[in-house]
Amino acid sequence: MTSNSTEYEKGLALLRQIHGGHAGEALVDAQRDICPDFATMSIEWALAGIMSRPGLDLKTRQLIVIAACTTLGHAQPQLRAHVQGAAVVGATREEIVETILQTLFYAGGAAVANALQVAREALT
Amino acid sequence: MTSNSTEYEKGLALLRQIHGGHAGEALVDAQRDICPDFATMSIEWALAGIMSRPGLDLKTRQLIVIAACTTLGHAQPQLRAHVQGAAVVGATREEIVETILQTLFYAGGAAVANALQVAREALT
Amino acid sequence: MTSNSTEYEKGLALLRQIHGGHAGEALVDAQRDICPDFATMSIEWALAGIMSRPGLDLKTRQLIVIAACTTLGHAQPQLRAHVQGAAVVGATREEIVETILQTLFYAGGAAVANALQVAREALT
Amino acid sequence: MTSNSTEYEKGLALLRQIHGGHAGEALVDAQRDICPDFATMSIEWALAGIMSRPGLDLKTRQLIVIAACTTLGHAQPQLRAHVQGAAVVGATREEIVETILQTLFYAGGAAVANALQVAREALT
Amino acid sequence: MTSNSTEYEKGLALLRQIHGGHAGEALVDAQRDICPDFATMSIEWALAGIMSRPGLDLKTRQLIVIAACTTLGHAQPQLRAHVQGAAVVGATREEIVETILQTLFYAGGAAVANALQVAREALT
Amino acid sequence: MTSNSTEYEKGLALLRQIHGGHAGEALVDAQRDICPDFATMSIEWALAGIMSRPGLDLKTRQLIVIAACTTLGHAQPQLRAHVQGAAVVGATREEIVETILQTLFYAGGAAVANALQVAREALT
Repeated sequence: MTSNSTEYEKGLALLRQIHGGHAGEALVDAQRDICPDFATMSIEWALAGIMSRPGLDLKTRQLIVIAACTTLGHAQPQLRAHVQGAAVVGATREEIVETILQTLFYAGGAAVANALQVAREALT
Repeated sequence: MTSNSTEYEKGLALLRQIHGGHAGEALVDAQRDICPDFATMSIEWALAGIMSRPGLDLKTRQLIVIAACTTLGHAQPQLRAHVQGAAVVGATREEIVETILQTLFYAGGAAVANALQVAREALT
Repeated sequence: MTSNSTEYEKGLALLRQIHGGHAGEALVDAQRDICPDFATMSIEWALAGIMSRPGLDLKTRQLIVIAACTTLGHAQPQLRAHVQGAAVVGATREEIVETILQTLFYAGGAAVANALQVAREALT
Repeated sequence: MTSNSTEYEKGLALLRQIHGGHAGEALVDAQRDICPDFATMSIEWALAGIMSRPGLDLKTRQLIVIAACTTLGHAQPQLRAHVQGAAVVGATREEIVETILQTLFYAGGAAVANALQVAREALT
Repeated sequence: MTSNSTEYEKGLALLRQIHGGHAGEALVDAQRDICPDFATMSIEWALAGIMSRPGLDLKTRQLIVIAACTTLGHAQPQLRAHVQGAAVVGATREEIVETILQTLFYAGGAAVANALQVAREALT
Repeated sequence: MTSNSTEYEKGLALLRQIHGGHAGEALVDAQRDICPDFATMSIEWALAGIMSRPGLDLKTRQLIVIAACTTLGHAQPQLRAHVQGAAVVGATREEIVETILQTLFYAGGAAVANALQVAREALT
């Protein structure tokens, strides 16, 4: 994949802001052996391309991703990362819990119960 | 179902605020022939029990429900209602579109494309 | 596909019992132009192989399938057929509605609301 | 959340009947640190509000929930609890296994295979 | 969104190759009123960024997308487009039908039945 | 279940070819305590009935199943088995990784990220 260096730097900076100083290296390392381009796509597309857009603040965007991961039900590693990321960009514990609970009538109680346990561990 | 009249009135008031003056009657009518108690549950549980909780404002709660409905993929009538509801409680067209787009890396592009078409029709 | 004639006849008889006299022809016709073997698989595997098994009566099996189709959210043509089939093998309108409603805490309210509308049309 | 004490007691009694004497305390404990109201909602809504309804016996309701959890695929802790609960209210091992197997043509073989392993552990 | 013109042109050329001469305009038009950047993302990310990669031929990539859309169950407009796209890049009717049928044990029979009907219409 | 011995032998031979010499015994053992007929169904229906069909080669069929399991998100044991099976029937590491990546725009990035980690472990 031919990386777009401007987008990559912009996404990497946001990744480090939200997920901590070594998040970029950790993401690249996790994919190094199997699909390095997926790390690049995550940084350039999900972070620089979407998460950085104007129109919604970062905290609301993290809450929206928490709602999507809760609804999927199988996205627990991603849910954990975004619960922590939401806290970093200013979401309170109550706002994160209320976000998960707000999906109850759509995602169902099993998805919510399991997501709350992920949040409990992530916020300890 | 033994309705809890305080919760019912609280939920019905919120339903009318978000979905318009006749929303309560329309919801009850849609379920009248098949399952009247489901209308009561929607009003007492989803609206009075969850949507009315403190900790997140109504606009953010509507955006979270839009994210959950987009991710489910098959919840199009509910997505339409909540896109309209989000606009009523103050979400701009841009905020609604950005909410749907923010789920792209989790819900996938087919779910997002179809949700954007629902939003386009609902916001006309 | 080399059909197993004993299983085929057993499945076809059950299909006609549950879904009406012309159900076999209708199922075969629907797949004729695109994948005739899928009709054979449905008859030999789903009907003769699973639905005919001992251990649960036919009515309970139909209710279980209604629960699964409600939970999937996108299986509306199949949900409609099994709501009608459940009625044929003795399920009351109340039992069918309670089955859909019982999935609420797992499948979510959007899936239940949409399934109830399918049931309302199927049971008219 | 303002609990409705009549509904709470009714739901708690059913929870203890189905899931054993300490189930109420265990459910409340699991949510204590993160979202105590979710335990209340589970007891008042899922148990008192839905599971206690007339129209279907408790055993059939547990089998329906097993079908829904199998179909979701990601609801394994809930599936485990309801397999055990089904046995408590009178479902035989065969009825539980047949319920999971009956979802095969709708939930798919991966969901069924994984659910059968959960059932095997839960029924040991 | 700041489009990357090289990637955009590369993706647009592939879009026109697979989906026909006016496909780019149609995609852009569908999103014009609601989210023009989503058309750009589809062209630059899904087409130039993923579909154009080496390592698998275009026909196999289209079959993989057909399998994914069948499994989702709610991605019917996208399934239709990729069934037609698969035919354009050389997949036979038999290969497309076999791809859908191959997902049966994972996606379930309702998803397969509905996908086969979409394919039947798309291939007429 | 009355097994069809010709189909059983055909499916078992394919199971051993794809998943290794003891795969049949392992599959039967895993289901022995809970549902032996499910092992028979897997062998006769999924392997003899579908995977053995003409119209697509075995490698492409394994890639299609990898795409379906990635999209489901909760089918990780099955994904692992089919990643290994795909390698046995001739898929390169690159083809397997590209198959998972090709689902990105449909299954979403969480499903792809988790599937890539399963593939990394399965291909070590």
